Order: sequence, then C-alpha cells, then structure tokens
Amino acid sequence: MKNLKLVAARPDFSRSIVTVQGVEFGRGFVVIAGPCSVETEKQTIETAIAVKKAGALMLRGGAFKPRTSPYAFQGLGLKGLKILDKAKKETGLPIVTEVVDTRDVSWVGEYADILQIGARNMQNFSLLREVGKSGKPILLKRGMYSTLEEWLNCAEYILAEGNPNVILCERGIRTFETYTRNTLDLSMVPAVHKETHLPIIVDPSHGTGILSMIEPMSLAALMAGANGLEIEVHIDPESALSDKDQQLTVPQFERLMRKLDRAKAFLDSLDAEFADKAGGNGGGDADKTDNGIEAKIFADAVD
Amino acid sequence: MKNLKLVAARPDFSRSIVTVQGVEFGRGFVVIAGPCSVETEKQTIETAIAVKKAGALMLRGGAFKPRTSPYAFQGLGLKGLKILDKAKKETGLPIVTEVVDTRDVSWVGEYADILQIGARNMQNFSLLREVGKSGKPILLKRGMYSTLEEWLNCAEYILAEGNPNVILCERGIRTFETYTRNTLDLSMVPAVHKETHLPIIVDPSHGTGILSMIEPMSLAALMAGANGLEIEVHIDPESALSDKDQQLTVPQFERLMRKLDRAKAFLDSLDAEFADKAGGNGGGDADKTDNGIEAKIFADAVD
Amino acid sequence: MKNLKLVAARPDFSRSIVTVQGVEFGRGFVVIAGPCSVETEKQTIETAIAVKKAGALMLRGGAFKPRTSPYAFQGLGLKGLKILDKAKKETGLPIVTEVVDTRDVSWVGEYADILQIGARNMQNFSLLREVGKSGKPILLKRGMYSTLEEWLNCAEYILAEGNPNVILCERGIRTFETYTRNTLDLSMVPAVHKETHLPIIVDPSHGTGILSMIEPMSLAALMAGANGLEIEVHIDPESALSDKDQQLTVPQFERLMRKLDRAKAFLDSLDAEFADKAGGNGGGDADKTDNGIEAKIFADAVD
Amino acid sequence: MKNLKLVAARPDFSRSIVTVQGVEFGRGFVVIAGPCSVETEKQTIETAIAVKKAGALMLRGGAFKPRTSPYAFQGLGLKGLKILDKAKKETGLPIVTEVVDTRDVSWVGEYADILQIGARNMQNFSLLREVGKSGKPILLKRGMYSTLEEWLNCAEYILAEGNPNVILCERGIRTFETYTRNTLDLSMVPAVHKETHLPIIVDPSHGTGILSMIEPMSLAALMAGANGLEIEVHIDPESALSDKDQQLTVPQFERLMRKLDRAKAFLDSLDAEFADKAGGNGGGDADKTDNGIEAKIFADAVD
Repeated sequence: MKNLKLVAARPDFSRSIVTVQGVEFGRGFVVIAGPCSVETEKQTIETAIAVKKAGALMLRGGAFKPRTSPYAFQGLGLKGLKILDKAKKETGLPIVTEVVDTRDVSWVGEYADILQIGARNMQNFSLLREVGKSGKPILLKRGMYSTLEEWLNCAEYILAEGNPNVILCERGIRTFETYTRNTLDLSMVPAVHKETHLPIIVDPSHGTGILSMIEPMSLAALMAGANGLEIEVHIDPESALSDKDQQLTVPQFERLMRKLDRAKAFLDSLDAEFADKAGGNGGGDADKTDNGIEAKIFADAVD
Repeated sequence: MKNLKLVAARPDFSRSIVTVQGVEFGRGFVVIAGPCSVETEKQTIETAIAVKKAGALMLRGGAFKPRTSPYAFQGLGLKGLKILDKAKKETGLPIVTEVVDTRDVSWVGEYADILQIGARNMQNFSLLREVGKSGKPILLKRGMYSTLEEWLNCAEYILAEGNPNVILCERGIRTFETYTRNTLDLSMVPAVHKETHLPIIVDPSHGTGILSMIEPMSLAALMAGANGLEIEVHIDPESALSDKDQQLTVPQFERLMRKLDRAKAFLDSLDAEFADKAGGNGGGDADKTDNGIEAKIFADAVD
Repeated sequence: MKNLKLVAARPDFSRSIVTVQGVEFGRGFVVIAGPCSVETEKQTIETAIAVKKAGALMLRGGAFKPRTSPYAFQGLGLKGLKILDKAKKETGLPIVTEVVDTRDVSWVGEYADILQIGARNMQNFSLLREVGKSGKPILLKRGMYSTLEEWLNCAEYILAEGNPNVILCERGIRTFETYTRNTLDLSMVPAVHKETHLPIIVDPSHGTGILSMIEPMSLAALMAGANGLEIEVHIDPESALSDKDQQLTVPQFERLMRKLDRAKAFLDSLDAEFADKAGGNGGGDADKTDNGIEAKIFADAVD
Repeated sequence: MKNLKLVAARPDFSRSIVTVQGVEFGRGFVVIAGPCSVETEKQTIETAIAVKKAGALMLRGGAFKPRTSPYAFQGLGLKGLKILDKAKKETGLPIVTEVVDTRDVSWVGEYADILQIGARNMQNFSLLREVGKSGKPILLKRGMYSTLEEWLNCAEYILAEGNPNVILCERGIRTFETYTRNTLDLSMVPAVHKETHLPIIVDPSHGTGILSMIEPMSLAALMAGANGLEIEVHIDPESALSDKDQQLTVPQFERLMRKLDRAKAFLDSLDAEFADKAGGNGGGDADKTDNGIEAKIFADAVD
C-alpha cells in the first residue's frame, strides 16, 4: 500500500494508543455501547446507566442519523446532543456521536468526546479534512463498499491535517448475501494490525443486523485481535425509532459483557504464555516463519 | 428459508453429529490439516505425521485440483489417492479429499473417508446427487458467490438422496476486496447454527489466502462457534505446487494447535459457567430475550 | 418501492424535462463532455471549443476532485471555477461541475449551471438537502455500492426540499470484476424509466475506465433508452492530472458524436415506426414518451 | 491476461466464425430463442414454430434444469431431448440445450447441435474437458461470480482439448443489486472482442429477470457489438414451470425481432460508412488513437 505516509505500520508493529478521557484505544479492550439514536432523555440516560454498570467505557448515541429515506426519523440534532451531555454528566461516560456535515464539526465537537464518521461518509473528503483540523479523536467507520486501501487512505486524510487520534471501525461490507444486513469482515482486524499502527474496533450490530449473532461475533472479534467493540443497546428495543431489530436489551448486554470479560482475561493469559515461550527459548523457532512473514504480528495481534 | 425439509434447524437447536472413523463433527472441535495438493509420498506422509503429532484428527490433501488455467498443476489423480492411503496407514488419520466428477465418486470413495465438494462445484447438482447416493460423509464448501439459502439447499440435495452425513464448510466469498483472497464470512457460523442442525467448520486458508491471518481467524472461528477447521499445512510451503502463500509450516501449525487447545478449554468452561447460571436461576432472565430470539442458541453455538 | 412520493413514475410513464440554459434533459439526447479535471485555462477552453464543435451541449470539468489519496491532485477550486466560467463565455456551453461540501453549494452554484453530486457523496444527505434548497439543476450520480432504491431515495431528498430539477447518472458499480474500473449497469436505464419520471444519463468513462469501451457502451446506452451521456474528453489525455487512461481525444470524441447522431436519428425513426403501429390499434397516449422509449413495453411488464 | 494460448485475440482482432448447421456465430447477428424448460411437446413445438417465424435461427430449451431446490422441477431429461428433436424436425431449427454431467455429454450430444454449459458449471473443469473432447459447438455462459479472465480460461480448457467451437454468453453477474435478477454486464461484449477471437452473445432474460427490460437490453447488446442473443420465449409464460416472470410472449418476441432487424441493418450501414471513411482517407486520423489503443477494435466490434 503506497502513499500511507502517516498511517502505515511501524517496523515493530506496535500500536498507537488513542486516549479519550482516560479511555485507551489500542490497549486493553474497550466497549462502546448505547442506543442507535438518542430518542428521549429517559431512554438515553437509563441506557447509559445500564451499560456503564455492565462495563461499557463509552456511550454511543446518534443525534444526526443518516437514513435512506428523507421521511425516516433523522435524529434530534442539538437536542440530542444536550441529552447526551446530561447522560455524560450522570454517568461520567465519554460520548461518541456521529457528525455528518462540515458545518457541524465545531459545535458537535463541543459535546462529543469522539466524532464518528459513518460508513456513508467514509470518503466525504471535506468532512475528513474538517475533523482532521478539529484535533478531536475520530472513529472512522469502513465504507460499505470500501477496500482496506481506501479506508486507510481516508485515515491518512485525517492524520495529514495533524490529527493522529484515529480509531478504525469495521462495520460490515455490502455483498450479495442478504441473510445478514452486511457481511462483517473480521479479517480486517489482523489486516489493519499488519498494515497500520492505528487501533481497530468492530461494530457487530450493523455488521450483522441480527440480534442472535452479536454475541458470537463479538467474541470472535475479540479473539481476532480487535481493540474493542461498538454495540447498540436500548432499554426497550421494540420501541426504538431506528434499528429495532439489532439493539441488545440490557440483560443481553450484561451477559455479553461478562463473557467478554472472561474472554479478555483468557486472551491475556494466552498471549503471556506464548510471549514467555518465545522469550524463553531465545525468540523461538515458532516466531520465525519459513515463508518470510514476521510471526511477530501473531503475538501482537491482540495488543 | 423454505423447502429445507431435511436440513432445517430443530426446535431445540441441537446439532447433528457426523461421525467419521471415530471423529465426531458437531461435538468438540475437529481440526483437519494437510497440504493443498498431494505432490509426493514424502511430502504427504511427513506432513501427515507432523499434523497428527500436533493434534489434527484428519488429513486433507487434493488429488484432483480445480485450477483456473488448464495449464496449471491439476493434481496426481489416482496416484495421489494411493499416496493418501499410505499416509492413512502410516498415521491412522482418516482422509478428506475432493471429488470433482460424477464418474469418480465411487472409486474416489474407496480411498476417501470424507468426500469434499469444492466451492466451484457447490451447485453441481449432478455431483451432489451422486455423493448423496454414495452415503459417504460429505464436506460441502460454500460457493464463493452463494447465499446461505442456496448453500443449505445444496445440503438438502444430498440429504434428499438419503445421506445425512453432511458437514458444511465456510471458505470465504468473493467481494470487491482484493487485499484478502476471499472475504471469510464468520457470521455464517451462528447463521448456520440458527438455520440448520448440520455441523459447520471453517477454512481460514482459502478464506484469507494470507499466512499471518490464519491464526487470528482460526481463533475467531472457534469463538464464533465453529465445529472445527480445515487448514492447509505443508512441510515446505515454498516448494508447493499450489497455494504456496497460504500453507502453514509445521511449527506455525503446532503453535496454532496449542492456542486452539487452550481456547477450546476456555470456551467449554465459559459455556459450562453460563449454562450453570441459566440452570441455577431457573432459566434466567438473561436467557430470555425481549425481542423474541431464543437466547438458547447462544449457549448451543459451540456444541 | 415505497416512500418515493415525489420521484415515483407517473401512471403514463411520461418523463420530466429538466431544462438548463435551453438544454433539455428528458427530451432528445444530451451529451455533456469535457475534461476530468480543470487543469489550465488553455486545456479547458480548447477542450470546450472542440467538444462544442463536435456537438456536445454542455461542458463538464472538475474543480473539486474527490481523490482516494490526500496527496493526489485535488482540483483547482475557485481558480478552476473561474476557468470554467471563461470557457462558458467563450463557447456558450453551460457548465456541470461537482460540489463536495455543504459550505460550497451557494458560491459554486454561482458558476455552475448544474451541480454534480459524485458517487461517493450520493448518500451525503446534508449535501443533498443543501443542493435541494439551492434550486439548481442537480446531476445525481449513482453510488458505487448503491441499489436503485437507495439512489431514488437520494433523489427524493432533493425533491423533498422543493427542487424538482434532478437528472440521474449511472456511472458503474463496484463488483468483483477487476478488468473494468466499474461495472456499468445499463439495466438501470430501463429500470429508472419504469420507477421514476426523472431523466437518466450514463457516464461510460467512469463506468468502464477503458478507452476502447467508451464508444460501444455509449451506443448501447443510447439504445437502452438513456437521455444522454457524460463523457470525459481531453485535448491531450497523456498529460492529464487525473483519469488519463479513460479520457477520449478530440478526434475520438468527434467520431463518437457522428455515430451517436446517426444512432439517435435511427432510434427516432424506429420509435416513430412502432408508435404508428401501436397508434393504429388504439395504443394511446400511454405509449408515447418524450424520449423515444416505447411505454408499451412498460405496460406489458406485468402481463 | 496470461496463459490464454488458444483463445487470446489475434493481432488483427478478427473474429472466429463458429458454424452450426449453417448458422454462423461471429458473422451477422444470431438470435436463439425458446422456452426456459421443455415442458410438453405442444409447448415446445408451438414455441419453436413461432420463434422461427419471427426470425430466430436456433431453438433453446432445457431438458436438464439446474435448480436451487431439489424439490423444484428438474427438467424432463431424455424425454425433453426427444421433444426438442421433434421440434427440430418440424422447424429445421438447430437445438441448443444444457448438459450438466460428464456422463451425459455423449448422448445429449446426439440430440443437441450446441451443448450449453450453464453459469453454475462454468468452472466444472471435468465437464469442460469432456465437452472439449466431444468436438461439439459449445455455448459457454459466464459464471455469476466470474471475472473475464476466469471465463476465458474456461474457454481455454475446451480449446485445449482440440475443440475450437466455443461461443461465449454473458448472462449477468451477481452483485448487491436486488432489483434485477442479475447485473447484465454489457461491457463484457467489447472486452471479449478485445481479449479473444471467440464470438459472444448475450442472454438478457437471465441477465435482467424482468420482462420489460429484455427489449431495451437486447437492442443495447446489439449496439455494444454482440454477435447474437439467447432469449427465453414461451407460448404461455404464465403456465411455465420455471422462470415464468422473464419469458417473452410470442407477440413480444416478434416485436423485438422486428426492432432488432432494423437495428442490425442500421448498424451494418454505420459500420460501412465509418469503414469507408477510414479507408477513404488512408486509415484516417480518427482511427488512430493518441493513447496507444488500436481504434481498429471499434470498427471490429460488431463484426
């Protein structure tokens, strides 16, 4: 991949840490949770309290919703941002919310701790430059038709404006398969770790669109080496104004978080064990491959 | 999904067990390993001994190779089957090998313990009927352009001939992404578990085509609930006559198997813990969803 | 297709006419031509004079270029618009140019006769609303990952702001095929004619990315019922700063225009002949369209 | 494209003529028509008489139908072939019918004048070799997931067995678009003409799956340079056992054939006019491109 002057992987495959209000992306495993859309103060704050209790480190919630139809619910806008702000004050959870217009970057950035660039705007280069200039941490979703190379070039747009705080998010691509809402491409996790130093998280909610798949795909994402997840949770999914079929209930989310906790602890012990072995025998044959691929990246895959 | 009279999921989401020479698909986690192609007796037998030692339960190896160009290596045919037979006698490992022609089903079945239907032949309905009639266990790979519904209908073709011994294998689909050889669609693991009682394994070698991705995607597949893996391993990948860039070396495979062992033990303990909890509190709120999806399938996903 | 309150086809399948400085889209066959990017005054004006002489009715030229890499030529911006303005004064050709940022709609609209929304911005809903409010004629390209339904909903966004002047442009979608730059989906021409009253043109330059395919695909688009074409022409393609492999030379364009002239005259005579026949048996108004597509075949679609 | 020893284009871009019972593919414009499936003697013979009268030069009809579900109508087999034989005796039209099994090539070849390899069997390499050995003319459909390079390699398999009589058929590929049954990729017509000397026809019935699109896409295919069409026609589509929504009625087909006749005559005159010009001025500047692409292929595109 050429022209990736700023986002290309380092020789030692170390990962950049993007720190947001004390939350570190690229170290540990960060779960962002919250409703698809901010709908009411009650819905947002109750969900925020619940996901925090379950272990989420950040709150997501859309105030500007890109919708296929102009007649669908478009989000509450400023009112939604104010609700998110209350939820943050209530819980201490930093806020991730989408920005869709260059004119909004500055004032939405007053409320958001991370600005999200949605899949449909991945190649909205004006917006990328504007969020680059803002210096805010950016969550850059993969476009649903985008190659890895295009995606990383979009990150390069942001870094080229002097903003190194980019977190990538795989959220599924469009294929011929209609069973799932999108095809969640978990192979992007090791691919991103090989080609760039930026952290990557996974969105299994949009990536599958099917409630029962969120738990297994979340565990799979963790094991593939993801640095975190973004998951839709709603206190009452059936009443949701958008994405009602893919938002977890609070009990489902609690259960998932308990499983993820166990799985993360297991993965840490696995990495420690194999790092030891590698160290113990002086680097170890297992770390050298016969095919010229650095085995090092296996060990780093989950860092 | 309509018309899936024989392959549709059971009300209790229990999984069929396909038993091949004592190896059980649908219970535990079965790793099939071996070279892409059978090339020489030495290469095949040495690889067989090595993968068995590392924990593989079956040997794969192609004697008939579907190749894009008529001028590429097409496999050793009968000679290759005889080599596989020797490797089986040497190691006790049952054999998986591809059959590509209705005329070959009978005699290839004399050597193979499982007949593999490759991605390009998934909708070769004559071949499906013929392997259905053979009664042999069948490994049915997903076509690279196939929807879940089409894939399950192909399994239905085999079962409709009276052969219930079908194992599904996700091996990646074709998308616009050119970084990976295919896009490995791990969401098919929970989808298959939801829609059918047949076991499903994953082929990360063809699914990614990139050596360094095989380990993380294998671990991810296990965690998503796969019933096993099919992995290409070669004693000397650089000298291979096909797929030289995606075959693991023996040390790489040994390392992967040690990790998979730990991961499987972890997953069993996780399932036991959450099954206990479910039982302990009389079914548990966490196991009932508010959206009408049986949480049961989470617990069963890896069974 | 639901929710298409304003763009849905009329009962008589008549086509809307979008008139731009006397040029009518939806009647006759309109060719827009010009360079991919405005590079210099000389290049733009000489190309404008040449394409006008050859029969083009509008001039295209990018001043804001969405590019995969931030380090690629991004267009001349305001300077480019001023050059386009000179070219317009020189030739009388109205101008089509892309707008990529909500903040630019107003002032770019001072120079442009048609504002183009590029494929990557098709679902940039803020931008759609803004160009909707501008009242300017809009050329809305199909996103490279977009279904017909999504595309028409984007047109609906513009019409919902009170702007009926939308021209659709098919420019190829992304598939697994890598031989062509995109897969030009000419079936969208009759599909658009069936589902909406808006005119549709075709861009064979981006649709194929291969010089030698532009002529046959242009003739095919005309015969499929397209209301026009947008074609990249450059006085010296080898020196171009973008898309050098797909811009026609002036002689190539002249030749194409002569062929299109003949083909349009033929198609008109064909339509007249078959309309006569239809008229003879009381085929009625529903069989006549403004752009030479026999509505009869639409009416038969559901027989 | 490498390894295309036998199918690669000639230096002069001349086209091979595949002659079948006096019908020439690669010269003129050949329309194959007939029902999707052979259902009854009456249905087949009446359709054959009607399509012959309308100008079709060959009769299509499936006796072996590849169907997604094992419980769908699978064709009449031998009985269907005998019906086709009667229709041939009745009308003199040569027969195109699909073969799906290596074991059937020999005896199906007794009835068929052209053996069709369907999209799902494009990479059934055993079948390709077998039809190659048969020496019969072969209609090779593009796989719905196949690149141009793979498709031409499949033709190479047939020619490598000593059978030069291959006709290619574009029938649409699978994309994310669900409005049409497939995405008919007409750009393959000039692409095939550029890369190989084999003739190519287009199947708009499967390519669109929508009745009202068959006429415009047929005209577009002709203008893009196709050497012919394969179209589904049924005397009573509503009663059809397969593909009832995409089979033309006899009156619709007659109307299409009249339009195609006019269009072919027009195209011949257009080619003659432009060939004259090229010849008249000694090759002509318009025929030389500045970008290193031989303009010759424009002129040859419809030969």
